Amino acid sequence: MDFSKLNGLVAAVIQDAATREVLMVGFMNKEAFDKTLETGYATFFSRSRKKLWLKGESSGHRLVVKSIATDCDKDALLVKVDALGPGVCHNGYESCFYRQPKDGEWVAVDEQTYDPNAVYGGSH
Amino acid sequence: MDFSKLNGLVAAVIQDAATREVLMVGFMNKEAFDKTLETGYATFFSRSRKKLWLKGESSGHRLVVKSIATDCDKDALLVKVDALGPGVCHNGYESCFYRQPKDGEWVAVDEQTYDPNAVYGGSH
Repeated sequence: MDFSKLNGLVAAVIQDAATREVLMVGFMNKEAFDKTLETGYATFFSRSRKKLWLKGESSGHRLVVKSIATDCDKDALLVKVDALGPGVCHNGYESCFYRQPKDGEWVAVDEQTYDPNAVYGGSH
Repeated sequence: MDFSKLNGLVAAVIQDAATREVLMVGFMNKEAFDKTLETGYATFFSRSRKKLWLKGESSGHRLVVKSIATDCDKDALLVKVDALGPGVCHNGYESCFYRQPKDGEWVAVDEQTYDPNAVYGGSH
């Protein structure tokens, strides 16, 4: 993998292996990538917290890796997963991509699949 | 959109609207994003050439935008497209994500859908 283009990171697209829904985009450094391969659970590098982030660590909504692929210039990953739990988005949606533009605003077009306060206790 | 996290760029996941195949990941700056909305053709910022890049400009394989969505923290886009032409990858594949790990190497697991030399003349 070429981690040089994004300051040590590559973009990782997370796609539901069954429904083919794109769930989220995360970023992995070399360590997160190795951890993902080794454990079989998608692990990212949190840019805000500046540390490894096992997705689902607190919520239990882990992402079980079914397959992994890289692109032509090896600076992005496509990770197909089996998503444990009702959604990957900490705002309560199945996919983080729940908003579309409408009259110059981003508007939620999906339905929430769980109550984020019940899962994260409003502390995120 | 929040262009601040990746030095003025956001990651844009390109997904085939019909097959739901993830075709590529590109990056957009504000100008490329506006151009994409305005023209209806996916337009990126080329990090290597440091300029706007209308995908399909030379090959004719343009990406017609069918829908666009952003994620919870507005630093990534999911762009569903109708892909004109046999593939988006300049290496001759439908999707740029044609390689998977096998015995510690990245191995092509997809079939080529066109001859890149015939399209790009070997000049890329």
